[in-house]
Amino acid sequence: MESREISQAVIRRLPRYYRYLGELLENGVERISSNDLSKRMQVTASQIRQDLNNFGGFGQQGYGYNVKYLYTEIGKILGLEEEHGMIIIGAGNLGHALANHAGFEKRGFVLKGIFDVNPTLKGMTIRGVPIYMMDELEDFMKNSDIEIGILTIPKAKAIEVANQLVDYGIKAIWNFAHTDLNLPDNVIVENVHLSESLMRLSYNISRYNEEHRAEK
Amino acid sequence: MESREISQAVIRRLPRYYRYLGELLENGVERISSNDLSKRMQVTASQIRQDLNNFGGFGQQGYGYNVKYLYTEIGKILGLEEEHGMIIIGAGNLGHALANHAGFEKRGFVLKGIFDVNPTLKGMTIRGVPIYMMDELEDFMKNSDIEIGILTIPKAKAIEVANQLVDYGIKAIWNFAHTDLNLPDNVIVENVHLSESLMRLSYNISRYNEEHRAEK
Repeated sequence: MESREISQAVIRRLPRYYRYLGELLENGVERISSNDLSKRMQVTASQIRQDLNNFGGFGQQGYGYNVKYLYTEIGKILGLEEEHGMIIIGAGNLGHALANHAGFEKRGFVLKGIFDVNPTLKGMTIRGVPIYMMDELEDFMKNSDIEIGILTIPKAKAIEVANQLVDYGIKAIWNFAHTDLNLPDNVIVENVHLSESLMRLSYNISRYNEEHRAEK
Repeated sequence: MESREISQAVIRRLPRYYRYLGELLENGVERISSNDLSKRMQVTASQIRQDLNNFGGFGQQGYGYNVKYLYTEIGKILGLEEEHGMIIIGAGNLGHALANHAGFEKRGFVLKGIFDVNPTLKGMTIRGVPIYMMDELEDFMKNSDIEIGILTIPKAKAIEVANQLVDYGIKAIWNFAHTDLNLPDNVIVENVHLSESLMRLSYNISRYNEEHRAEK
C-alpha cells in the first residue's frame, strides 16, 4: 500500500494511534474494538474507524482490530521499520535531554554523534555517544550514514549550521532553534518551536479567563 | 476586541507572526507591507492580509503595517501582557533546558520553583530558581501564585502528578511526558510529544524517498 493515498490529517494522527497501540501491546492486549479504543483515546469511534480503514479491512464487526498487525502497519507507514542515523548539534541541556532519550533508539532512531563548539566537551560521551567538535562535522558526515540532524543551538547560529548540514548531504532537520530555516525543498524540516507552544498555552488561559468572566 | 471572534486557524499562526514582528522591531523596522512580510515568512500576502485584518484596519494601502502596534496587539491576544507564574516538575536535562531558557521570562512567563524527588538536588538553584522536593509542592502551591505547571517527568508518574497539580489549583499544564493526561475541562493542557514530532519527520523522509523512487 502506498502511503501517499492517506490524507495529511490522518498522517498527523498516526503517531498517537501508534503510541496507544504500543501501550496495548505492552499490556498483552491482542485485539480491541473501535469503541474501546475510542474511550481510551477520547476520539469518536467513527473517527477511528474512518482513520484505520485506510489500512485495510482488519477491523471486523464483532472482532475488533488486531493490535499487533495495526501497530506494525502504522509503524511501516511512519518509516519506523528502517534505521535512521542521527546527529545532535548542540550539547547543551536540550541536546543532553534528547541524547538521553533511550526511547528514540527503540523506534530505529540511532544517535551516532553529538557536536558542539565547547572544547571542554571534546572526547566526552552521552549514553556512549561521543561528543565531537564542529570542525569534525564535515568528515564525520562523509564517513557516516546520517539522515537526520537535530539542531539544539541558539537561533543566531542555527541557519548557518543548517546550511552546512545541507551541503554535507543531510536529508532532514529536527529544528529546536527559535527560527525558520528556509532550506531547499528536498530537505525535510520538522520544527519544535517551544516558545510558540507556550504562547498557545497562554492564549488558551486568556481565552478561558475571558469566557469565565463573561459567564459571571 | 474579543479574541473569541478570531478563528482557531488564525490563532495557531499568531505566535509565528509575533516572532517575525519581534525580529523586525529588534531591527528597528517601523512598518512593513504585506508583500515584504510575505517574502520573509513564506506565506502568501493575501493570507497575511486576511489574518491581520482580524486586528483592525492598520494595514493601509501604500503604508503597510505598523510593526510595533501589531506586535503589541498580538501579544495582548496571546496573553503575554500578564505575568504567568510557572513551576517545573522534574529537574532532569529537559527541566534544566527549560529553566535556563531566559526568553520565556521576557514574555511574562516567570519560573518560580522547580520540583524533583532526588534529595541530592534539594536546595540547589537553576538560574536563581530553587529546587524543592515534591513533598513541599502542596504548601508551595498554597503560598505562591502559580498558573502553569511544566511536566518534564517520565510518563509513569506524569498522570499522578498532573492530578495532584489539579487538586492544588493549577490552571494549565505544559506536558512533555509521553502520555495524554485526561484532566478536567477547566485545566488547559498543551502537549509537546517529542516522539510524535520525530515520527512525523521520519514519515516525511519515507514519503520523500518513495516519491523519489517513483520518479526514477
